[in-house]
Amino acid sequence: MSKGLFITIEGGEGTGKTTLISTLQKRFADAGREVMFTREPGGIPIAEAIRAIVLGRENTAMDARTEALLYAAARRQHLAEKVLPALGRGTTVVCDRFVDSSLAYQGYARGLGIEEVGQINRFATEGIEPDLTLYLDLDPEVGQARIHANGSREVNRLDVEGMAFHRRVREGYRLIAGRNPGRIVTLDASKPADEVAAEAWAIVSAKLSEGASQE
Amino acid sequence: MSKGLFITIEGGEGTGKTTLISTLQKRFADAGREVMFTREPGGIPIAEAIRAIVLGRENTAMDARTEALLYAAARRQHLAEKVLPALGRGTTVVCDRFVDSSLAYQGYARGLGIEEVGQINRFATEGIEPDLTLYLDLDPEVGQARIHANGSREVNRLDVEGMAFHRRVREGYRLIAGRNPGRIVTLDASKPADEVAAEAWAIVSAKLSEGASQE
Repeated sequence: MSKGLFITIEGGEGTGKTTLISTLQKRFADAGREVMFTREPGGIPIAEAIRAIVLGRENTAMDARTEALLYAAARRQHLAEKVLPALGRGTTVVCDRFVDSSLAYQGYARGLGIEEVGQINRFATEGIEPDLTLYLDLDPEVGQARIHANGSREVNRLDVEGMAFHRRVREGYRLIAGRNPGRIVTLDASKPADEVAAEAWAIVSAKLSEGASQE
Repeated sequence: MSKGLFITIEGGEGTGKTTLISTLQKRFADAGREVMFTREPGGIPIAEAIRAIVLGRENTAMDARTEALLYAAARRQHLAEKVLPALGRGTTVVCDRFVDSSLAYQGYARGLGIEEVGQINRFATEGIEPDLTLYLDLDPEVGQARIHANGSREVNRLDVEGMAFHRRVREGYRLIAGRNPGRIVTLDASKPADEVAAEAWAIVSAKLSEGASQE
């Protein structure tokens, strides 16, 4: 049995990741394709406990390096307990955010260094990379406006960061996308959601056929 | 004002670290020397919460890399919130275990690699190293016998590891000590506790005078 495809979805706040993922879920179901959608900490008890520390509003004194190490720790446990077993069974895995999020947010936007944050993440992943990453690129002004228009989601610690931070996140993502042209596909997230989803599915299904033809 | 001395105490289970530290506390007090004794997570709420995840007996499925990242995260927060501010005030800090513990336990004994675990710890410490490390070297058979004779301490997750693991921990420490002859002083912990403490205090007070003469 061949290994499943590992696909990740990346982007800043309000870029439409949740909407895209919900459409992809439907497309996979319509195509009768076995797939697992997940996002860290993904119901893995140890990873959930770690993430609760990171996102705790009371933990205002958290050092940026502590945060980056905790993200890497939760990532490792989620990968080891959930993602790798599924890929090993030949299941396609779609993960909402992965290492690139840490590189863009902690490495670039918080200034810890893409290379340094990359190192602790290589330790966490043992160098495993996604087969395909869809990066939703959007002006953060538009992203923030979308979040505030949509009052349904609880505002978290990252939403209260200033606009300058969200601009740096986008710069970081673009830099990382530029360095990984073979893996990361940039999607223009300012387009209507159904267009973005159609483009994304075209890329994903091409990758799935490519994987199938290699078997 | 000059920076305080950073001293760490290392060794396997049952090597007498607690006894040595209690004697050193008395010697520092007698000498009227300002000092802070600490050990991770050291009452720092974020570090305590992280350590609770590591030591939770229910977390039996914890991956070795997750564990190493969590130790590094708790270390970072303890260093940033407690150790570095004290050193900055000119206070001598004595820390019960530091990076060498992770190198010996996770890096060597659990087989993650001293170099790899060293990398995530350099991220955590920004390369800060102790000025002096006292390593208590002891045959783990003797160490385990001491622990079992002393029923006062609660048995933790590490105590239930097999003897082969404790032997690898010692091998790891000896390897690390050999690579850092300028920083790590090996003490023969099979000697009576008062002899070990006298040797340790002689080394520490020489280091303190050396520091003072440089001012």
